[in-house]
Amino acid sequence: MNGHTALTLEDWGLREDGLDVARLAQTESLFAACNGHIGVRGNLDEGEPHALPGTYLNSFYEVRPLPYAEGGYGYPEAGQTVVNVIDAKPIRLLVDDEPFDLRYGHTASHQRRLDIRAGTLGRSTEWTSPGRRSVRVRSTRLVSLVQRAMLAIEWEVEVLDAAARVVVQSELVANEEIPSTTHDPRVAAVLRNPLRVLENEHTNATLFMLAETATSALRVATMAHHLWEGPEGTEFRSDSFGETARASWITTLEPGQTLKVVKLVAYGWSRRRSIPALRDQVSAALLAAEHTGWEGMLAEQAAFLEDYWDLAAVDIEGDDHLQRAVRFSMFHVLQSGARSEGRGIPAKGLTGPGYDGHKFWDTETFVLPVLTYTMPEAAGDALMWRHRILPAARERAAQLGLRGAAFPWRTIGGAECSAYWPAGTAAFHIAADIADAATRYVAASGDVDWERKYAVDILVETARLWVSLGYFAPGDGFRIDGVTGPDEYSAVADNNVFTNLMARRNLLAAADVVARHPGVRPDVLPDEVTTWRRAAEEMAVPFDARLGVHPQAEGFTDHAAFDFASMTADDYPLLLHVPYFDLYRKRVVKQADLVLALHLCGDQFSDEEKAADFAYYEPLTVRDSSLSATTQGIVAAETGYLDLAYRYTREAALMDVDDLERNTRDGLHMASLAGAWLVPVAGFGGMRDHGGRLSFKPRLPAPLRSLGFSLLWRGRRLRVEVNHHSATYSLHAVERRSSLDGVRPGGTDPIDSLSLLHYGEEVTVGVGEHHRLPIPDIVERSGVSQPEGRGPMERLP
Amino acid sequence: MNGHTALTLEDWGLREDGLDVARLAQTESLFAACNGHIGVRGNLDEGEPHALPGTYLNSFYEVRPLPYAEGGYGYPEAGQTVVNVIDAKPIRLLVDDEPFDLRYGHTASHQRRLDIRAGTLGRSTEWTSPGRRSVRVRSTRLVSLVQRAMLAIEWEVEVLDAAARVVVQSELVANEEIPSTTHDPRVAAVLRNPLRVLENEHTNATLFMLAETATSALRVATMAHHLWEGPEGTEFRSDSFGETARASWITTLEPGQTLKVVKLVAYGWSRRRSIPALRDQVSAALLAAEHTGWEGMLAEQAAFLEDYWDLAAVDIEGDDHLQRAVRFSMFHVLQSGARSEGRGIPAKGLTGPGYDGHKFWDTETFVLPVLTYTMPEAAGDALMWRHRILPAARERAAQLGLRGAAFPWRTIGGAECSAYWPAGTAAFHIAADIADAATRYVAASGDVDWERKYAVDILVETARLWVSLGYFAPGDGFRIDGVTGPDEYSAVADNNVFTNLMARRNLLAAADVVARHPGVRPDVLPDEVTTWRRAAEEMAVPFDARLGVHPQAEGFTDHAAFDFASMTADDYPLLLHVPYFDLYRKRVVKQADLVLALHLCGDQFSDEEKAADFAYYEPLTVRDSSLSATTQGIVAAETGYLDLAYRYTREAALMDVDDLERNTRDGLHMASLAGAWLVPVAGFGGMRDHGGRLSFKPRLPAPLRSLGFSLLWRGRRLRVEVNHHSATYSLHAVERRSSLDGVRPGGTDPIDSLSLLHYGEEVTVGVGEHHRLPIPDIVERSGVSQPEGRGPMERLP
Repeated sequence: MNGHTALTLEDWGLREDGLDVARLAQTESLFAACNGHIGVRGNLDEGEPHALPGTYLNSFYEVRPLPYAEGGYGYPEAGQTVVNVIDAKPIRLLVDDEPFDLRYGHTASHQRRLDIRAGTLGRSTEWTSPGRRSVRVRSTRLVSLVQRAMLAIEWEVEVLDAAARVVVQSELVANEEIPSTTHDPRVAAVLRNPLRVLENEHTNATLFMLAETATSALRVATMAHHLWEGPEGTEFRSDSFGETARASWITTLEPGQTLKVVKLVAYGWSRRRSIPALRDQVSAALLAAEHTGWEGMLAEQAAFLEDYWDLAAVDIEGDDHLQRAVRFSMFHVLQSGARSEGRGIPAKGLTGPGYDGHKFWDTETFVLPVLTYTMPEAAGDALMWRHRILPAARERAAQLGLRGAAFPWRTIGGAECSAYWPAGTAAFHIAADIADAATRYVAASGDVDWERKYAVDILVETARLWVSLGYFAPGDGFRIDGVTGPDEYSAVADNNVFTNLMARRNLLAAADVVARHPGVRPDVLPDEVTTWRRAAEEMAVPFDARLGVHPQAEGFTDHAAFDFASMTADDYPLLLHVPYFDLYRKRVVKQADLVLALHLCGDQFSDEEKAADFAYYEPLTVRDSSLSATTQGIVAAETGYLDLAYRYTREAALMDVDDLERNTRDGLHMASLAGAWLVPVAGFGGMRDHGGRLSFKPRLPAPLRSLGFSLLWRGRRLRVEVNHHSATYSLHAVERRSSLDGVRPGGTDPIDSLSLLHYGEEVTVGVGEHHRLPIPDIVERSGVSQPEGRGPMERLP
Repeated sequence: MNGHTALTLEDWGLREDGLDVARLAQTESLFAACNGHIGVRGNLDEGEPHALPGTYLNSFYEVRPLPYAEGGYGYPEAGQTVVNVIDAKPIRLLVDDEPFDLRYGHTASHQRRLDIRAGTLGRSTEWTSPGRRSVRVRSTRLVSLVQRAMLAIEWEVEVLDAAARVVVQSELVANEEIPSTTHDPRVAAVLRNPLRVLENEHTNATLFMLAETATSALRVATMAHHLWEGPEGTEFRSDSFGETARASWITTLEPGQTLKVVKLVAYGWSRRRSIPALRDQVSAALLAAEHTGWEGMLAEQAAFLEDYWDLAAVDIEGDDHLQRAVRFSMFHVLQSGARSEGRGIPAKGLTGPGYDGHKFWDTETFVLPVLTYTMPEAAGDALMWRHRILPAARERAAQLGLRGAAFPWRTIGGAECSAYWPAGTAAFHIAADIADAATRYVAASGDVDWERKYAVDILVETARLWVSLGYFAPGDGFRIDGVTGPDEYSAVADNNVFTNLMARRNLLAAADVVARHPGVRPDVLPDEVTTWRRAAEEMAVPFDARLGVHPQAEGFTDHAAFDFASMTADDYPLLLHVPYFDLYRKRVVKQADLVLALHLCGDQFSDEEKAADFAYYEPLTVRDSSLSATTQGIVAAETGYLDLAYRYTREAALMDVDDLERNTRDGLHMASLAGAWLVPVAGFGGMRDHGGRLSFKPRLPAPLRSLGFSLLWRGRRLRVEVNHHSATYSLHAVERRSSLDGVRPGGTDPIDSLSLLHYGEEVTVGVGEHHRLPIPDIVERSGVSQPEGRGPMERLP
């Protein structure tokens, strides 16, 4: 590549100057355009160079074998892997005889820009071919947040200096070659050509392709329509063959002349709908988009985002870079969930094939708390997916000899796909994480109807799981043995504190919701509810009186110290260099576990316990998971380590922009991006929502002058403005718009005021009111340390 | 098949009347002829019908991939699988136009008989072909215990009733079709045709074939020479092609006439020796056997066994069936180890492909104690193999971040082949089991030279492992966390009592041996030895004071009860019907673990503790492993449950003859067969050898009138005769014979007497003396129960 390259966070976006081919995989992830339904990696329009071409549809996957050298009962035999579907991005260009490819010729300038207010990816390149013809190529790409099925691209070539003959080819391509990510030849074979093209047609400027996966038998339909403007004499034709459909233009452009193409693409997929039904579906979506037009789509995209930022923006003074990173992060969180509509949100959103495109607990624990307060409709939709997969989860529980629902540790469609049970099946806390997210969503949205339709089932089935998983030990309370908590460097331990506390909350929430909705689940008898409450009450919560801290799980504090001193930077992540057996039996923590309990179940700990526990676990936590910085940051802030919290905020927010874990290539870390909202709000704002009640203990780290954030709460917007001396709480009614009607009022509390706690003191804020309250003196702590070299990460300059 | 079929234990052997094709796989295992170097399954001479053709050479294996859907650091990538080598058993017969095949025509009689004094497998069949020609086929097969490389077969056909034309074909065959035992197509591909034939020749009556495995690059050479007698005019020819070499005879036999063939077969294999060297090796072995002749080989085989039974027989009065089963079991244990010579003893011996032909801890813990006292040379040889693989074990330890040697949980050649680490790598007790076997061997043989050459290294390297694996916990002793004990229904637990007690013994033995052999390991400094002794002294041994029992590992007694009541007979073995996670966290025991500690480390428990512990674990132990009955029987006897012990003896001894676990098809259960010696000797004889000192507490169950057994001890034979009232101890010098010179005198104690304990009282027995001592009254216990349906197994009548 020629010249200087740089990736720059802007106030409202991310800009790349020059093309860094070595960094292409990362920028493809960062520049992904998604809406929760469709995800399109930031591949160049011309297709190549690329690192990993990717177009994904939420929950569109192929089935792959899961091999075991030594199998076991209940091991899943089939996995699910997200597949790159029909690619509609490519618009190739031939300039005289030379393909437009930035690896050849001379690139005078190249810029890409993700605009998070416009919701578009722009691109502008000036390039001189090896044959010395110069062109400027500009494109704007959007995946519509308003019209779920639509990808749209405006693309233009202008000839500079001297006339040139140009050929433009806009394509649909199935089964693009992608680099293999597996060593297993059988799996590679399944994923090499995942699609069978069943229909491939062209009709004037419209291309249509329909394909099916071999084993999962899912069908995807893609229809593209083209509009164009070019000089007189521009010739157009289209054709389709094999796994390609193509529209082509040929013309000669004089200097200053342009050929412009608008490509509107509709995607649809289904397991059940027939070929004609799918064709009609995408054809209808395309017609609607044509009706809106390119300019119309741009406008509605911008309007959607204007509403979003208006309701949800986090404003930070004192660190512009962090301000920008937080906005960038929130944009991608929004993109991951805006239109997921009953299909869940994968760990990487739809930005890359990492983790096989699976959904994990991180969605409920990290991503949904953000969406619950910023775009509640999206949170409710993601949780509806959990309700939808309850039958599979019940079946899995039965297979495991349990009652209720055992949600899969990792899945796309609902079936357990985890092939290593100690860090999969055994991580039952996911049940409580989902229950917690549902409870939070209901509390924040006040959506009683949703609660009756979805939350009751989710809570009942998970409560049943806990009662069948644990047991009443004579004299020892309700024990939950042999499970794995969030920390994956410990596994299969007894009475994991996080799990037990979350299970307690789950059981109580289930008991409450059944009482609130009598008759919804007539199969739940009073005795069962009594047992839930008793299990919650007697839940075992181990405590190490000798050290005065909570062991993460029974026995943890008795284990040997891990020899951090002998580790070098290259030994991380430890799981690639140390056997599990050695990690499991030593005091080393991959990611916040007990500390996550301090955050999410903070009402179960005293301030002194929090301080002691945080100080105990911080030096043991290596943060080999991107989920951890957020939690460590929030609890650091609560326990007074404000500078540390500040640095964790930056790590969470810059995880992907700075590629801190060197795997952004596979997709963005949605949970970490969510942390860019969570640490400011829950750390520096001190926001908690225990028991469905909002409370705050605002406290800013020295570098920040002020912080402002908003929470949507039952049809109102609570704005919190914090500086070093005071916090101001204001309540606003929300004007509801068709493009964002996710804020559903409900519940029985008065709509015109909100009662909250500020440092434990009750404050009632009426709509239109501003309450300014002083912030008490914070006892700042310092001196806690992390394992050598595992402090908050910053990109090396 | 026609007529009645039966399998009958004889006084000195096993007889089959009629051929039960459905049971063929089991009888192929039971009738296997082995010497520890070569193993030949009891396939019929004519090759078919067969269940599983099998000819194995100790440590001859192919490498196979070990696939993981989710891999991990330190997971072995390649496994080793025993392969069926060149088959030299087939002698086919054509009678007129009909192949001799018992599935067709009429079998008037068929008998096979394993004679454990002759060391031969006899066979006699009268068969009428579909074309109504009747023949009698007789054969005798032996794998020489004296000439390690040799298999020999005498085969004869006699025509009955009417003359018939017969064709006899004696073959060497490579790559026989065998039923696939894997679902993994890559593994199946590797094992489908494991041999590449490099040489295949015939020269008159001699056939020669040499083949190589593709990946492990091992070469096997087989040479067969034939002698024959037939009527005048018998025509002979030989040929070789593809993967077959063949000697053929054609003749017409009048009624009463016979054609007799003696086939002498030499096997040799090597990774390093050249083709000419291997050819010479088998040629020389064959020449020696020809020199001995068939009758000579029969005679030396019988002499070897006469010596063996004379020195080692266990005599039981009161249960003839048990007497026979014990002898049968001892014969197979002898066959597994007699000539293993530096290559170890697999779990199935060389009787079948079960467990991939791997060697496990069961050899050291169950098989070697028998051989140590009945054929010590074989025990020493098996342990030399452990010394030989020390470099691989040291490398594995380093890979795992440990010091010393981490012996593989399962292997053929020395590399770890376990693909499920919680029940593989984590089962570190194998190190102490090997150390214990080496210590026992040295104590019993008195072989100081062997101790210096082999035991020192084994003990030093395993002691180092323990010190690096455990740690000194302030105020909590020396802890060994996160390991798996013998019970595979628990895993990765802290302070497994069996492991810790065995590790303590290991550490002390290492410290002692280093002191006895100064200078052998100059790398061991005094400080290190001090640490070993301190770790041993401070070893954590958890005890549950509330229940008054030892938890198998920390936390075990706190776990939930397993719901045995809801299990049916079809739910066993549980591992095929219950997920590991559920087994691990509940009180259910696959096989003796703490109870094995009560036996092997009995000097570390009081009688009261033994009684309480046994009564606690017996109702939790499902015995899904064939290793368990032996231990439960021994400890049942010690704690006074004599009837229960008696029934466990029968289970252990009849495991394979009655196919109690329905998997004898894959090979015999060597450890269980060893139990047929161990329960009488250690259970009813009460023999213990703690600290290298023999002690006895004889006690017979009601059905037995008397018990006699012998122990070889530093060049003497101690004979113990027990009845209900007294025990008689006599000491004999052993006349050493060239065929059995494994009894190596040594050590410093006087050669002409032996000091032992009888019920705690010291008795010194001189050579030629008989000491008769009364047996105190035994407090018999009863009433302990097993999980429903999991009492000692008996074959259904």
